[in-house]
Amino acid sequence: MSGAARLIYLPLGGAGEIGMNCYVYGYGPKDAERLIVVDLGVTFPDMDSSPGVDLILPDITWLEERRDRIEAVFVTHAHEDHVGAVGHLWARLRAPIYARVFTATIARGKLAEYGLSEKEVTVVNPWPEQVTAGPFRVGFVPVSHSIPETSSLVIDTPEGRILHTGDFKLDPNPIVGEPWNPDVFAAIGKSGVKALVCDSTNVFSPEAGRSESSIGLAIEELVQAHDGMVVATTFASNIARVRTLAEAGKRAGRSVCLLGRAMRRMVEAGVESGVLTSFPTTVAPEDAANIPSENLMLIVTGSQGERRAASAQLSRGKYLGLELKDGDLFLFSSKTIPGNERDVIRIMNAFSERGVDVVDDSGGRYHVSGHANRPDLQMVHKLVKPQMVIPMHGEHRHLRAHVKLAEAAGITGVLAPNGTLVELQGNAPHIAEYVETGRTYYDGTAYIGALDGIVRDRLRMAMNGLVVVTLIIDEDGEVLGDPWCDLKGLSETGRSNAPLVDILEEDLSQFLGRADDRTLADDDKLEDAIKRIVRQTCQNEIGKKPEVTIVVSRLG
Amino acid sequence: MSGAARLIYLPLGGAGEIGMNCYVYGYGPKDAERLIVVDLGVTFPDMDSSPGVDLILPDITWLEERRDRIEAVFVTHAHEDHVGAVGHLWARLRAPIYARVFTATIARGKLAEYGLSEKEVTVVNPWPEQVTAGPFRVGFVPVSHSIPETSSLVIDTPEGRILHTGDFKLDPNPIVGEPWNPDVFAAIGKSGVKALVCDSTNVFSPEAGRSESSIGLAIEELVQAHDGMVVATTFASNIARVRTLAEAGKRAGRSVCLLGRAMRRMVEAGVESGVLTSFPTTVAPEDAANIPSENLMLIVTGSQGERRAASAQLSRGKYLGLELKDGDLFLFSSKTIPGNERDVIRIMNAFSERGVDVVDDSGGRYHVSGHANRPDLQMVHKLVKPQMVIPMHGEHRHLRAHVKLAEAAGITGVLAPNGTLVELQGNAPHIAEYVETGRTYYDGTAYIGALDGIVRDRLRMAMNGLVVVTLIIDEDGEVLGDPWCDLKGLSETGRSNAPLVDILEEDLSQFLGRADDRTLADDDKLEDAIKRIVRQTCQNEIGKKPEVTIVVSRLG
Repeated sequence: MSGAARLIYLPLGGAGEIGMNCYVYGYGPKDAERLIVVDLGVTFPDMDSSPGVDLILPDITWLEERRDRIEAVFVTHAHEDHVGAVGHLWARLRAPIYARVFTATIARGKLAEYGLSEKEVTVVNPWPEQVTAGPFRVGFVPVSHSIPETSSLVIDTPEGRILHTGDFKLDPNPIVGEPWNPDVFAAIGKSGVKALVCDSTNVFSPEAGRSESSIGLAIEELVQAHDGMVVATTFASNIARVRTLAEAGKRAGRSVCLLGRAMRRMVEAGVESGVLTSFPTTVAPEDAANIPSENLMLIVTGSQGERRAASAQLSRGKYLGLELKDGDLFLFSSKTIPGNERDVIRIMNAFSERGVDVVDDSGGRYHVSGHANRPDLQMVHKLVKPQMVIPMHGEHRHLRAHVKLAEAAGITGVLAPNGTLVELQGNAPHIAEYVETGRTYYDGTAYIGALDGIVRDRLRMAMNGLVVVTLIIDEDGEVLGDPWCDLKGLSETGRSNAPLVDILEEDLSQFLGRADDRTLADDDKLEDAIKRIVRQTCQNEIGKKPEVTIVVSRLG
Repeated sequence: MSGAARLIYLPLGGAGEIGMNCYVYGYGPKDAERLIVVDLGVTFPDMDSSPGVDLILPDITWLEERRDRIEAVFVTHAHEDHVGAVGHLWARLRAPIYARVFTATIARGKLAEYGLSEKEVTVVNPWPEQVTAGPFRVGFVPVSHSIPETSSLVIDTPEGRILHTGDFKLDPNPIVGEPWNPDVFAAIGKSGVKALVCDSTNVFSPEAGRSESSIGLAIEELVQAHDGMVVATTFASNIARVRTLAEAGKRAGRSVCLLGRAMRRMVEAGVESGVLTSFPTTVAPEDAANIPSENLMLIVTGSQGERRAASAQLSRGKYLGLELKDGDLFLFSSKTIPGNERDVIRIMNAFSERGVDVVDDSGGRYHVSGHANRPDLQMVHKLVKPQMVIPMHGEHRHLRAHVKLAEAAGITGVLAPNGTLVELQGNAPHIAEYVETGRTYYDGTAYIGALDGIVRDRLRMAMNGLVVVTLIIDEDGEVLGDPWCDLKGLSETGRSNAPLVDILEEDLSQFLGRADDRTLADDDKLEDAIKRIVRQTCQNEIGKKPEVTIVVSRLG
């Protein structure tokens, strides 16, 4: 049995969340499969669960332990949730990376940041060419999305063909990148697709998706109707939208200026790699300040309300010599990602206070999604006619709804959230194992496990405040002087109106005065007792049980 | 000049946010006006800005300093953002509270929690009766909202009539409470309204609002179409919705059970005060577990994903003997308040993992708002024909848009966010002063100022982590032993792979070894130097500059 080859699918990220895409395919005898990785993406932290964290990566321990079996990493496109972890994680995998030229440009930049060689990335041509990686032959099928050269992957295996869609939409005129071509998908399906591993993010969007080209006119009209400066924000990496905005601004007779490093870098990478031709000319930020407001359109980063991005900076006042004022217009040509609403609303209100008119996408006129909606997914199921659909890229509820969608069309659906190792050989998919997966936090310049307790400590300090108690015990085992307390993040007075720190020190002094030698000699006992007293006193005084850090210094 | 009477309006909360409503009106000579307060509401904390805080109240320092001039507090309705601070703040104002019977029942409960007398609350009859409070005569005009006896206030003053709408919608059949009556509003307007002080929360909703009675059938059909258990959640205080849900469940042939203390308490208060008649009979939670799933409908608290509410409990497993399973249905008959999306989505995914179908309001079939939309506001402007509109209850962007809406109809609009003291006497409104306003945090059982730095310290610890350094200096001014470091919320190792705590202690020891006596003798100097070293070492090792707490113990 151990000699029989199997074909496996294992999501390590992206199947249980939107973002952090990382999928593994394997073929060979059990525990000796040759492996390929599709995408190495990141996701973003939030105050509720990961304060202070800079970036979230998939935990690739499982892959790292099988490093010698990894044939290659394939990157479908250059969005952060697909390529963002390449620089952070490559050194732990050391497998060749394959991508199309634009994606390769971005991936190489990420390797370079970590002093790694550009040569680790090999540029591939699109389908029907294929790369051989162990038992796999992998081809990059151009699809429409919102960044150049986005690709689905045809993964041919000895057990049949897998079509891994990556992110995609059905756009006949996507402004950047190739249009979606149903004939190519039909042809791929014709030779028989075992598994369609498919984007699920928009499975709850009931209407067919709209083309990127459908919003340019509305944006142009909006710009034209305004006399003051016009500023539009979108994701820096949504190159399609940046182009749509820039072209609309041009048509409305304005000079266009890109603000924000990430956005300028993306557009430069597009031009450099030769995939972004005839992008409208732009003016440099330092020149923009000299252009009359009514002739200027800024396209800026910070659509999610990020505090250091250009949108937030402009909402607070002058930025790079530019300042918005009464009668100017700010357009969110973007969707707010769940969890970012408060930050976005803060910026909207800051602009409101300056008299700036804010327009968002609530009317559906100035933004379209880059992903396939429910009817689009149904169409792809129909075109490709796979033996099974394995939903990926989505929260659990998206995956589950996508399974139901496939099953409603008579196709086997496989619910496989992160860590589900699915065997695909033979006639029916089979869940063989649940692999431990998780998240790694990039924190400052350190990598910490999401469950290491470090971030949990931060959350506890944020929720409960902290009391630091210091105490000196002399050579004879006696308490020297008084215990000393320091409060962080706690009310200075409570019920009895005396300073809380005095009450704590008094309560601790009393306890220490009556504590026996055995307690004083035993660090654990002593600390337990002190912690109990501090928490109880705080509960009585201010109704909170704080975190407690105790430092007992023993002399001699 | 000081003898001339003026009529003033001053929002202390609610005009710059959704929630925390608190408005002041005054009449009399400058700085000797007799004052009335409308609403004493709360708003809710979040991790981004107020971790660990339990509740947010308006800062009423301005009012407290003028306590002897306050004639009365009027509460428009029993929602937390209008009545929630009554228990917390009454003792600082000590003015009589007026409300209709249901609102009074809730307000009295809040006073009782703080050991205050029920007698502070006087029950009033609805319009056309009026209460005299100093120079004001105030009447409670029944309007439709989502809780019984919601009222607009007619405030008659020597300078003319003010109509303070409170929260309202134009619902001819609101399920609970009185229908909205355009004739009454027209009649109030007929005698001349100086200022319409008006709800603004839904000014961006472009379609006319829908009646609460328009969703019952859709909910009934949804319940009927499901075989398993059905659970629906909404705000506990949305009594209209609780009733709509309960009646739909009944009509679908199910026993209805209310889960969650807040919800049961609200319905009980409605029944007790006599305003909630013929509410469907419900079963107790302890009996619900014995009812077959297909005959049961739960109506539960926790529509915003609150971690301790019934929805969250059920998403995690068995709760009060009840457990959801494959094929059961969970309905969010509610809108997610911005900032709560992640918590709500977490619950949706937890249910998805249990095979529970989750339905939300994305289709607009199972929820309607309790507030007036844009066209509704326009209709009210038209009916009342005020001299001016002062938008209240809304973020800055809502207030500003509402001003524009009024001005588009030829009515003077007054943009008056929290702290704007507006004089209303004479022919034109005049902004006389900006008063300092803010937020008070109820934290455990303590009240702290939002700007006291306490919560800022929590946020900093959460973002940056903390290093505690302790150090003993002996009688001779020499360092005794080694400095000791403790990390909270920080990576244990960094660039050099040695324990960070060892590197810190080593760096500090070196510094102390070469520090001169003057530095060692000066606490400030010493602490500054230690902080600098700790932050620099951490920056080098883990790329973060932590918070630092330093305890220097001096012996002798």
